[in-house]
Amino acid sequence: QIDHFGFDENRTFQQRYLVADQNWKKDNGPILFYTGNEGDITWFCNNTGFMWDVAEELNAMLVFAEHRYYGESLPFGNESFSDSKHLNYLTSEQALADFAVLVEYLKMTIAGARHSPVIAIGGSYGGMLAAWFRMKYPHVVVGALAASAPIWQFGDLVPCGTFFSIVTNDFKKSGTGCSESIRNSWDAINHLSSTDTGLQWLSNTFHLCSPLKNLQDAAVLKNWLSETWVNLAMVNYPYKADFLQPLPAWPIQEVCKFLKDPSLSEKLLLQNVFQAVNLYYNYTGEAPCLDVSQTATKSLGEMGWYYQACTEMVMPLCTDGVHDMFEPQKWDFDALSEECYRMWGVRPRLSWILSMYGGKNISSHSNIIFSNGGLDPWSAGGVTQNITNSLVAVVIPDGAHHLDLRSRNPLDPKSVQQARALEICLMKQWI
Amino acid sequence: QIDHFGFDENRTFQQRYLVADQNWKKDNGPILFYTGNEGDITWFCNNTGFMWDVAEELNAMLVFAEHRYYGESLPFGNESFSDSKHLNYLTSEQALADFAVLVEYLKMTIAGARHSPVIAIGGSYGGMLAAWFRMKYPHVVVGALAASAPIWQFGDLVPCGTFFSIVTNDFKKSGTGCSESIRNSWDAINHLSSTDTGLQWLSNTFHLCSPLKNLQDAAVLKNWLSETWVNLAMVNYPYKADFLQPLPAWPIQEVCKFLKDPSLSEKLLLQNVFQAVNLYYNYTGEAPCLDVSQTATKSLGEMGWYYQACTEMVMPLCTDGVHDMFEPQKWDFDALSEECYRMWGVRPRLSWILSMYGGKNISSHSNIIFSNGGLDPWSAGGVTQNITNSLVAVVIPDGAHHLDLRSRNPLDPKSVQQARALEICLMKQWI
Repeated sequence: QIDHFGFDENRTFQQRYLVADQNWKKDNGPILFYTGNEGDITWFCNNTGFMWDVAEELNAMLVFAEHRYYGESLPFGNESFSDSKHLNYLTSEQALADFAVLVEYLKMTIAGARHSPVIAIGGSYGGMLAAWFRMKYPHVVVGALAASAPIWQFGDLVPCGTFFSIVTNDFKKSGTGCSESIRNSWDAINHLSSTDTGLQWLSNTFHLCSPLKNLQDAAVLKNWLSETWVNLAMVNYPYKADFLQPLPAWPIQEVCKFLKDPSLSEKLLLQNVFQAVNLYYNYTGEAPCLDVSQTATKSLGEMGWYYQACTEMVMPLCTDGVHDMFEPQKWDFDALSEECYRMWGVRPRLSWILSMYGGKNISSHSNIIFSNGGLDPWSAGGVTQNITNSLVAVVIPDGAHHLDLRSRNPLDPKSVQQARALEICLMKQWI
Repeated sequence: QIDHFGFDENRTFQQRYLVADQNWKKDNGPILFYTGNEGDITWFCNNTGFMWDVAEELNAMLVFAEHRYYGESLPFGNESFSDSKHLNYLTSEQALADFAVLVEYLKMTIAGARHSPVIAIGGSYGGMLAAWFRMKYPHVVVGALAASAPIWQFGDLVPCGTFFSIVTNDFKKSGTGCSESIRNSWDAINHLSSTDTGLQWLSNTFHLCSPLKNLQDAAVLKNWLSETWVNLAMVNYPYKADFLQPLPAWPIQEVCKFLKDPSLSEKLLLQNVFQAVNLYYNYTGEAPCLDVSQTATKSLGEMGWYYQACTEMVMPLCTDGVHDMFEPQKWDFDALSEECYRMWGVRPRLSWILSMYGGKNISSHSNIIFSNGGLDPWSAGGVTQNITNSLVAVVIPDGAHHLDLRSRNPLDPKSVQQARALEICLMKQWI
């Protein structure tokens, strides 16, 4: 159903989902249901090894459901992103309704699944969806594991600056002079980008695919660098991995090896910054040049997420350059609103998500695990304290973005091993 | 917000609500929030004396919120019912979102209400909304009193025939020969309506405003009679009242005084049936003729409800003429679907309401009172057994449709007095 909440649009669409039942105990063995987020479901499926690891122990069937408007689950095919009319059905509520209907369909059609308890599992936005799925459809899922889900990164529930100060701390801890080098880099870029020769030098130094032409391009460069540091904080895993990009173990430590001396002259400093980001974008050594329009895997659906961030998923973020290593930037809702209107013809609604999902006032719900990594900037908006006996916060001090959802690894820190053990223990209580 | 669940339609509309705060204890005294149903809110306000009666005891503010598309709360003014595009936002989900946003607005804007606990109260469809409001927005309301709310009159959760067998029992208990007289009346009408003189006789005998012309009109007459018996069962109150129509105490007993002998000849039988329905439609003696297109107060929004019954609110009902006094009629979803498509250009969705609100699987929710009257046909789809310690069923054996929500009355049976006492006691525990 393209529109669950209205009857004028009565068409349906094909939603993709993946099923793995080799470990499933027929006749009501549990189902672990991945609430797909903003990307191709096969990619999430391949990066959620935790579910594969526990399938045997829980005798569970795995289902990975793709989120509408991502991957191959496009309600209007190639037209899906053409205008605000076609995008109108891209909301978390519609996605949750898809999941509810899909679970019911699977339980009706798979022999022996009729009474299978279903647990929602998701990470990041998918973690929010897992938590919200349990909140709104407790008759469909007995519980939810919401990994690195910043369900409080909305409205004024948390300070807007914490996110970037966590990123900064990750760099501060990973090498002397590292965060200071990055903090100093912005002025260096600003200074150089004030002249044409400076812009050209920057383009060459950063091996950019398309050269910078003006101050606006320089702003794009800075934005791209910021996102790079944020992404590094998200994927600062203890072993070689390929989530957003192929990277070595503890990539921020590797990056910081280039950023030891913040007092260098601006050109030397920026050459080091290039070395640092080049490690992120070109760890395989295959990139002929760096593209400032791309910061992560193409498996993520940037268009769809941009629209969602322009409607429901308005997450206030800000920097001050003091508690963080970024250029100061206030949270500016009006500017966002204008940009969204220009881009998509829609206006974001700041408080709707709070009205819908309750903000901090969620204690009447049950059976949700909120896990968060201490290294992960998204933990700023996460639930890191138990709310009740059955709304449990699991903190992984040396974990990055939903490390707990990844496959077991010999290099896993003790904290994530314990977190997973607790998660499994709680899930067993639900089923 | 006309559309809470999409961002393409960004217009807003004016929702009407009534506030009574003379008994309210400022600084966080409770708010009793009436979740308006399919009609003019002033009419519900005047027929929900229970809230007025308890306001003092609970130091409560009363709020009566009008349901979108009813009364004066028309999203598109006179255009609201013009086509399926304009009707697209008439759903229970949108109505609940209206209520959530309204409660938050009131708590923000009324001095001293910031931390007021809010209890949802509603009857009939409004009772369903009250229960669903607590289920979906537990952060907004601490509990709900769902009076005569047939939340299980959907899908195959309950047998479709119980509704009409309860109506029949009400008549059976209210006078010898009463239900049999009605059961025999259908054949009499069928026989007479096969000739023009018979149709004319029926038109005269029933004092119809517009005479019957053919078999189709005769079917309308029978349908109107059926609805009349159903309505009488709903408003079979122990005292003189004016809910759907002005009526004496225990109106079915009064009606049955005309229907003692089912073995009368068909014309005599139908003359008695006329006397019976005339009591319902013309208790005041002011009606010059009877109008088969109207069965209840005009305060109910028939258009809107017709649309809702054609979309989400699909409640299967059926008769067999054996366990009930009606003409046998199977539940026919396909016929309904065709009629709805012809009428509104929409198709009903049979299972959506179950997916959305959980059907019988609601035990993980809390703080909901389901009250039902034993005389009320809608109790067929109601919750009449406790589900958990905090999902409590209150049964009022000699109560009709949400009798408990009406003002205290000296003629109230003991059962409704006790029911109200229990309801108040439980509500006090929530606040």
